[in-house]
Amino acid sequence: MMRTIALLLSYDGRNYHGWQSQANGKSIQDTLNAALSSLFNEEIKVVGCGRTDAGVHAKNYFASLRTTSQIPTEKIPLGANAYLPNDISVRRAFEVSEDFHPVHSCEKKEYTYYIYSAPVRDPFLDGRVLHTRLPLDTELMKRAASHFVGTHDFSAVRSLGTPVKSTVRTIYECEVETHDNLIAIRISANGFLYNMARAIVGTLLDVSAKKIGADEISDILLSCDRQRAGATAPAHGLYMTNVIYPEQFGLITD
Amino acid sequence: MMRTIALLLSYDGRNYHGWQSQANGKSIQDTLNAALSSLFNEEIKVVGCGRTDAGVHAKNYFASLRTTSQIPTEKIPLGANAYLPNDISVRRAFEVSEDFHPVHSCEKKEYTYYIYSAPVRDPFLDGRVLHTRLPLDTELMKRAASHFVGTHDFSAVRSLGTPVKSTVRTIYECEVETHDNLIAIRISANGFLYNMARAIVGTLLDVSAKKIGADEISDILLSCDRQRAGATAPAHGLYMTNVIYPEQFGLITD
Repeated sequence: MMRTIALLLSYDGRNYHGWQSQANGKSIQDTLNAALSSLFNEEIKVVGCGRTDAGVHAKNYFASLRTTSQIPTEKIPLGANAYLPNDISVRRAFEVSEDFHPVHSCEKKEYTYYIYSAPVRDPFLDGRVLHTRLPLDTELMKRAASHFVGTHDFSAVRSLGTPVKSTVRTIYECEVETHDNLIAIRISANGFLYNMARAIVGTLLDVSAKKIGADEISDILLSCDRQRAGATAPAHGLYMTNVIYPEQFGLITD
Repeated sequence: MMRTIALLLSYDGRNYHGWQSQANGKSIQDTLNAALSSLFNEEIKVVGCGRTDAGVHAKNYFASLRTTSQIPTEKIPLGANAYLPNDISVRRAFEVSEDFHPVHSCEKKEYTYYIYSAPVRDPFLDGRVLHTRLPLDTELMKRAASHFVGTHDFSAVRSLGTPVKSTVRTIYECEVETHDNLIAIRISANGFLYNMARAIVGTLLDVSAKKIGADEISDILLSCDRQRAGATAPAHGLYMTNVIYPEQFGLITD
C-alpha cells in the first residue's frame, strides 16, 4: 500500500549546491534521495517545499515522498539520519494524505536572515551569518521593513528565474530583531519570488547605509524596477525557518 | 625596537590538527605564523597559552609574538584577519612587557564542554558540540562535578603526554549548566593536565549513565587510577573559553 510521508528537515547548506537536484554538484535533494532509497530499499524521490539556493540553510524545511515500505513513521527520522551526512537531519516524519504537496499545500513560509555587525569576525559564524564591519542603523531598517508588509507586486526585489504567473505576494511580517551584535531579519509571506528575501535584505542594508530612504520602499515596489532596490544579499546568511500547512495535515514545526 | 604583542584569538578547531605546529597536517600555530609573517613582513613565531588537541575550539585563547614592526597595536587584528582563514580570528592585540609568557604568566584557565542531548541531531551543531541521544541526569552530574573542585592529584583524569613535574592542580569551578537540550560543563583551574577536561567530562557522562556513583569521585581521584574514571570525551565538544593573566598585563577577555 502506497503511503505519503512528509519529513521535517534541518540542513546546513554550506556544502551543497542548493536544494534542487542537478547534474553538477551535490544537492540536498539528491543526498536525501540516496539516503532514503537505502533506508526504504526502493527508489525514493523527494519533493521539496522550495528551491533553496547554494549556501542557503534550513532550520525547518518540509519534503514529501511516496513509499510502499511499512517502516513505522516514528522510526523514519533515526533510520534516515543513519544514512545521511551530519549536515542534514530528518527531525520528524508524518504520514499525510495523498493530496499533500509541500509547495502547493503551503499556506505560509518564513525566512530569517542573520547579520553579525562587529569590527572583528567570529569564526563560529563563518558561512552561517553575513558579517559586516559597518554598524547598522536598525531603527531605520525597522521603519523600512514595515513598508514591505502587505500585498504588493514584488518585481523590484526578485531575480529572474523560472517564469511565474504572478509577481504579487503578501508579506505578513518583516521584522528586524537585534540580539547584541546579531541582527535577524524575519520575513513571512504566502510565497516568495526568486531571491526575494535576499533582495529585501540587500535593500534594508542600503537603507542602513543611507543609500535608500526608509520611506522610499513603497515607491520602489510600485516602480517594479529591480535597479532601484538593493543588491541580493549573500546566500550564507539566509535560513528557511518556518513552513506552515493547513491544520488538516497536522504538520507542526515546534 | 623589539615589541612583545599578545593576541586574543578565537578559532574553530574542526579543520586543524590542533594548536601545535607539526610536520603532518595543518595547525593553528603554523597558520598564524604564516599570516603574521606576511603582515609584519618578517618571520614571526607565536607562542600559545596551551596545546589544544585536533578538533578542540577556542573562544578565548592568548598567544604572544615578538616583532620589530611598528604597526600600531590596534591595527593588528584587522591586518592579521586579512591574511587568516575565516575559521581563525584575531580579536584584539595588546602590547605587553617583555616578561609576559602565555603559559608561564597564566593565573587561571577555563574550558567549557558542550553536549547536545536530544533524540535527533542538529546539523548546525555538527563538529561543535557532542551529540548524545541519551537523556542526561544533570542533577547527578552537578553533584559529581562538585567533588572535582579543590586541590587534588588529577592523575586519574589525564592521559599520558609530555612529562609534568606535578600532577596536582587546583580546580576553582566545575559547573554543569543546562540551557534546554544543551548542557555546558565549565571547568576553571590554575592549570590542566593533558586531556584532563575531557576525562572529567567522560567521567560525568558515566555518572549520568549510573556507571560511576556521584559520590565516588573523591575515591577515584585518591586512587590515581585512570581506569576507574570515565573515557576521554571527544575533542569536538571542547572549547578554551577563558585565560586569565595578572592585572599588570592588562589582558582582558570581555
